Amino acid sequence: MRKATFLISAIVSAVVSATLAGGASAQAKPADAIEYRQGAYEVIGWNFGKMKAMVQGTAPYDKEAFIKRADIVALVATLPLEGFGPGTDKGAPTKAKPEIWTKMDDFKAKMTKMNDEAAKLASIAKTGSLDDIKKQFGATGASCKACHDDYKAK
Amino acid sequence: MRKATFLISAIVSAVVSATLAGGASAQAKPADAIEYRQGAYEVIGWNFGKMKAMVQGTAPYDKEAFIKRADIVALVATLPLEGFGPGTDKGAPTKAKPEIWTKMDDFKAKMTKMNDEAAKLASIAKTGSLDDIKKQFGATGASCKACHDDYKAK
Repeated sequence: MRKATFLISAIVSAVVSATLAGGASAQAKPADAIEYRQGAYEVIGWNFGKMKAMVQGTAPYDKEAFIKRADIVALVATLPLEGFGPGTDKGAPTKAKPEIWTKMDDFKAKMTKMNDEAAKLASIAKTGSLDDIKKQFGATGASCKACHDDYKAK
Repeated sequence: MRKATFLISAIVSAVVSATLAGGASAQAKPADAIEYRQGAYEVIGWNFGKMKAMVQGTAPYDKEAFIKRADIVALVATLPLEGFGPGTDKGAPTKAKPEIWTKMDDFKAKMTKMNDEAAKLASIAKTGSLDDIKKQFGATGASCKACHDDYKAK
């Protein structure tokens, strides 16, 4: 049993080392955290953009597709905060303003507000009318903007 | 008959053109698609790295945290494919090899395999033993590596 566990452990170790050469150790480098949060924002932005096209009528409204994208945004919206840990104000190119780390409570509050609005959008996407959806889409976008206005450099 | 065939052909042609045009306007620029898929991979890599630390014992195993990360990876793993549409082989710095677009069926099959392994990991994370989890973590990592080996430049 012990031998089997060791073997599995060795296999996992070899595969994972090969796969994630230089991947995150328990303590990630600032650059990794910066790229992580930027990656999460990319995922949010892409899916939000596709929803925006549907809301604005430049793409046909597809309820199932909208729900899927709203679910993705609701989940991924909860991720960037982990990438704003202490010492991640520099280490890679970033538009994150230094105020984030001096006003972390306010930054977190704005992030939570955005998470809540995104979760509400995912919920309304499933049950609400298109008008309700449009309204909540606007509220979600506004919660993104509130944070960008204060904490994202142009 | 010949006239009817021509008419149908013309209608099909018009519909297809309109569809493609609509698609194209809703379709983002290649650079956006490249950044989107890279963002998704960043999110996968970060969370996979945190799971790796738990699996390897360089971070304490936290079942709830592991489940959350496995769920994130399982969902986000389904996203990058959308960023590999036609014409997205260039437009921004990318390690995606041109073979992706000439062997798209194989690329998609490898992506599907990875999606399946990640979904299985998310499931086993909730119910399996730590040994089961380690084994499935290895299988998931191997499914990432299989695609990287063929389609990701060094």
